[in-house]
Amino acid sequence: MNALLSPDELEARLRQIGAERYHDLHPFHKLLHGGKLNRGQVQAWVLNRYCYQGAIPRKDAALLSRMHDVELRREWRRRIVDHDGSGPGDGGIERWLVLAECVGLDRGYVVSTDGALAATKFAVEAYVRFVRERPLLEAIASSLTELFAPGIHKERIAGLLQHYDFADDKSLSYFRKRLDEAPRDVKFGLAYVLREARTAEQQQGVIDALLFKTDVLWAQLDALHHAYVEPGNIPPGAFVPEEMTT
Amino acid sequence: MNALLSPDELEARLRQIGAERYHDLHPFHKLLHGGKLNRGQVQAWVLNRYCYQGAIPRKDAALLSRMHDVELRREWRRRIVDHDGSGPGDGGIERWLVLAECVGLDRGYVVSTDGALAATKFAVEAYVRFVRERPLLEAIASSLTELFAPGIHKERIAGLLQHYDFADDKSLSYFRKRLDEAPRDVKFGLAYVLREARTAEQQQGVIDALLFKTDVLWAQLDALHHAYVEPGNIPPGAFVPEEMTT
Repeated sequence: MNALLSPDELEARLRQIGAERYHDLHPFHKLLHGGKLNRGQVQAWVLNRYCYQGAIPRKDAALLSRMHDVELRREWRRRIVDHDGSGPGDGGIERWLVLAECVGLDRGYVVSTDGALAATKFAVEAYVRFVRERPLLEAIASSLTELFAPGIHKERIAGLLQHYDFADDKSLSYFRKRLDEAPRDVKFGLAYVLREARTAEQQQGVIDALLFKTDVLWAQLDALHHAYVEPGNIPPGAFVPEEMTT
Repeated sequence: MNALLSPDELEARLRQIGAERYHDLHPFHKLLHGGKLNRGQVQAWVLNRYCYQGAIPRKDAALLSRMHDVELRREWRRRIVDHDGSGPGDGGIERWLVLAECVGLDRGYVVSTDGALAATKFAVEAYVRFVRERPLLEAIASSLTELFAPGIHKERIAGLLQHYDFADDKSLSYFRKRLDEAPRDVKFGLAYVLREARTAEQQQGVIDALLFKTDVLWAQLDALHHAYVEPGNIPPGAFVPEEMTT
């Protein structure tokens, strides 16, 4: 059994996971942010990543459904509001769909997820199930990749603006908004986890939850990279960019 | 197999379930609304019913976590906001706790649910689990007891005001608020169910879901009646009103 960590030690361990395994390190993101992808590859990324975006409110509602404390639910509910919005045309999912349209995708096709890779859907639903089934502490800990999100969003905004024609304030509004939302969310989640992980076993659960979540994100990019960067690998039924039709 | 019903026939069948099985027909409610309960018995009702009130946002979040449509989630989210409120001192659960204090209960004791009957907790958690596990259509259908709620709330407000000293605008604010909220909610839920139950099998699922829900409500009152109306039946660990201590 591991020794019990102090809250500071636990936080350092969690941040180390980000430094070693967060998907900003993935080759696909290097290509994306460095302007090395063509339009079809960017479309594939936006289309597949929609599966993840679209599932986040279900994930957060699953978490909410396991919270017995009104205050905690009220705090967590904000995430659902952020993503689903307060009315038509509002919310993070809507902003992602604006990005999808700006890169030339059909909104209905994106929402259908018909063209998304099976591996993307499996990873995303594994995340929803994890949050539904694992202890509440671990479910909350799995959200802590937000610790590392502002860095990637800043890098992404700069990289996309520099390299791609579609990139402007409108198409990138999702990322700009998350720069405000994510730090507020993660502050709450991190404080909760550091406070509630009181045994070595719970701390290991928290660490494993964050490792699991970095796997969820990484696996999505592996699937994208395999299908859309290396030639000839698009699976049956998945989105085929115009550039890659014959 | 049953024949496929028209939407009107299905609605009539659902309303018939209310007429035959909604808990306004339960002897405990007759005693409550007729002023036949003493303070301790009213306390027992408020204390136990808190378990149900307190679980409703978890139930609705479980439903939310299964909805793939943003619009649908946005509509359903309102129920969570209604119950959890927008900040401290707001929301249906808070209004129920005001009622609890007005009948002389300690707020912390109520929230702990330590004194609630095991049968109450089993019934309430059966409802949360039903919504989590059954098809979405049936989960939504189980909310349709709200069709019958305005009647009981009106009767309750009138009966309590007439018969009990604690009853006033403040203590009964929960019920007054639900008079506005429930019809709006149920209008949406009923339309969804009548539209989406397209096969005889689905219609039977909807009917069974509403029957299940009336059982959830009825079983709570049976347990209350047995423990607090018939003498000598309070189970070990359950709340003992001052009137019944020796």
